[in-house]
Amino acid sequence: MNPTSFAPEHFRWTFADGVALITLDRPERKNPLTFESYAELRDTFRALVYAREVKAVVFGSRGGNFCSGGDVHEIIAPLTRMAMPELLDFTRMTGDLVKAMRACPQPIIAAVDGVCAGAGAIVAMASDLRYGSPEAKTAFLFNRVGLAGCDMGACAILPRIIGHGRASELLFFGRSFGAEEGKAWGWFNDVVPADRLDGHAMEAARRIAAGPSFANGMTKNQLNMEWNMSLETAIESEAQAQAICMQTKDFERAYQAFVAKQKPVFEGD
Amino acid sequence: MNPTSFAPEHFRWTFADGVALITLDRPERKNPLTFESYAELRDTFRALVYAREVKAVVFGSRGGNFCSGGDVHEIIAPLTRMAMPELLDFTRMTGDLVKAMRACPQPIIAAVDGVCAGAGAIVAMASDLRYGSPEAKTAFLFNRVGLAGCDMGACAILPRIIGHGRASELLFFGRSFGAEEGKAWGWFNDVVPADRLDGHAMEAARRIAAGPSFANGMTKNQLNMEWNMSLETAIESEAQAQAICMQTKDFERAYQAFVAKQKPVFEGD
Amino acid sequence: MNPTSFAPEHFRWTFADGVALITLDRPERKNPLTFESYAELRDTFRALVYAREVKAVVFGSRGGNFCSGGDVHEIIAPLTRMAMPELLDFTRMTGDLVKAMRACPQPIIAAVDGVCAGAGAIVAMASDLRYGSPEAKTAFLFNRVGLAGCDMGACAILPRIIGHGRASELLFFGRSFGAEEGKAWGWFNDVVPADRLDGHAMEAARRIAAGPSFANGMTKNQLNMEWNMSLETAIESEAQAQAICMQTKDFERAYQAFVAKQKPVFEGD
Repeated sequence: MNPTSFAPEHFRWTFADGVALITLDRPERKNPLTFESYAELRDTFRALVYAREVKAVVFGSRGGNFCSGGDVHEIIAPLTRMAMPELLDFTRMTGDLVKAMRACPQPIIAAVDGVCAGAGAIVAMASDLRYGSPEAKTAFLFNRVGLAGCDMGACAILPRIIGHGRASELLFFGRSFGAEEGKAWGWFNDVVPADRLDGHAMEAARRIAAGPSFANGMTKNQLNMEWNMSLETAIESEAQAQAICMQTKDFERAYQAFVAKQKPVFEGD
Repeated sequence: MNPTSFAPEHFRWTFADGVALITLDRPERKNPLTFESYAELRDTFRALVYAREVKAVVFGSRGGNFCSGGDVHEIIAPLTRMAMPELLDFTRMTGDLVKAMRACPQPIIAAVDGVCAGAGAIVAMASDLRYGSPEAKTAFLFNRVGLAGCDMGACAILPRIIGHGRASELLFFGRSFGAEEGKAWGWFNDVVPADRLDGHAMEAARRIAAGPSFANGMTKNQLNMEWNMSLETAIESEAQAQAICMQTKDFERAYQAFVAKQKPVFEGD
Repeated sequence: MNPTSFAPEHFRWTFADGVALITLDRPERKNPLTFESYAELRDTFRALVYAREVKAVVFGSRGGNFCSGGDVHEIIAPLTRMAMPELLDFTRMTGDLVKAMRACPQPIIAAVDGVCAGAGAIVAMASDLRYGSPEAKTAFLFNRVGLAGCDMGACAILPRIIGHGRASELLFFGRSFGAEEGKAWGWFNDVVPADRLDGHAMEAARRIAAGPSFANGMTKNQLNMEWNMSLETAIESEAQAQAICMQTKDFERAYQAFVAKQKPVFEGD
């Protein structure tokens, strides 16, 4: 993947200053996902593993909304007619999107304005950070459409972000929650007025991109890997991971900058 | 089990609209647990696995209190005289109550008024949701009676609900906490005046009961199963679980209702 | 180890009323860690496993600061020149400090005033409870020095204390956070004015020390062991651990005190 020339068919993509910005682009329908956009997003996040120039990703909103989830006409309708092998193909593809978002080394920032529902809530959940506007409305609404809350990793990931009791409530009722609850619970890292939301998320992403990106990728990898390690194993695993980072040039650069009383300039190697 | 005719000996039971209401019934002693009520509760939650008409459970308060835990005279006194095999029989029986509460497919809502102490706090913890009154006083008081905080799963479950640092404090001090702290920490999903607490919990349970109960049972099962899965395994596990739910009639019903611009009527199959 | 005569070389140690107080002692440099103090702290916490007279530990601040982390001149400089085997020796030694803090049966209370940065933040994180002053500034600043956030267990432990999204933000930005955020997030159990911080932490430690210390050690052990157990396994594990505690004299003492309407006097056996 060449991030400068990359031109996906089913979502918008821009790239500058080490930061890729992804936005769904059907604002008149609140940016639903389709079979095609699921697959192309999955392939894109998989390709990011090898795109070292991309150092952070923002998943943004468009037209006042983040993502309304799987399109009722284009996704739900066909699903009601499928046999099990096709259904499992679909649920595995959507799960593969979450796996790919977690597996890429770039931290992902979701900038959530307006509707963030169903698979849209999952995309925000699978991101590393979340900023919301005061108008953000997030809903893990799966049981409202007759499905279980266990969609694309929600029963594993959501409790770790907001606590098990709150996650249970959201998954059993499918209710939406706003910016204030979201921030109090640790779902949103911060709430920012809608007209400054994109700028805030992009600025945060640029700060991450200016950091030691090899080490940041290691941090993300360990957050994933240590999900269900024992404490002892996790500590040994971090000893190995951090020793690797101590052999990067960025570690040396930070030390030299400190001695010279300068700000370090990281290059990601 | 026939939920309509079920008549337990050691606690109260009512059943209507798909919702079972369980309350301990010794209000003059703040509703302690006894050997007999532990065992009957365990057997009841085990039987609920096969009682499909029961779609949600409320564990309520009575006489201004939820549950004061194991009765000092009827439980603590005999325990101080037992040999190890009997002691382990007892701690396994109490643990089996928590296992049974987690293993039944029905979401359980604890409605906590007044005292919620010791094994009573554990019953609330093992529930899926918790509503409290402003007078609720919850205490994991085990170390005040000379025991460890690791009772019936508390060291595993409590940190996942309120965070590891807060759980550690509660378990090392045995102190009680009130409604306000409980809500800020994610222990209580909401705080409701005592005179409306039962009504609020029952209404929430009826809403859950009106939902897709097969799918809700799948959500609860996955919340349990994914407790210590890797992220990758959890996501594959949810792909399978959700594909199963996509073959239910409730999923079709939700889609048809959407197309007809009606509210779906779920039947749990 | 004799806690009364113990005289470490690289930090201060006092012992009274069952409580050991540890403070780093280079206040003019905000109490950095060195190779020597890391190793001596590790050895001390390992020795505490066998020092039954020590029933709680306070890790305190000095000169208005808790700990500034690894000293730039004494630690960072040599690390930039080491080969991998030496680097891994170092990261394993620092990890061993966290393992030793978790493995000792005594609850550890961190009393955090002023700077709490890098490995200092890790020492606070590895403690069981944390009290902070309004001036506390905690920073998991590893990526500011070109390293990964996965240091000494941070990617495993921090998300369990404050939630996964907040932990991710701290680890990807290395930013500091204050007392108010710290308390809202569950990082600090309470915030106390700086001039009362030490007294507050010592009083809390004395209350823990007056509790059933064998049982408290069991609680801490289970909090560690159940980190990545299944729910079912955790509940059985607690049934065994609590049955053991039911054969202590402290359990009998608590019962007899209750019957006599007295306050129990625990002796830790």
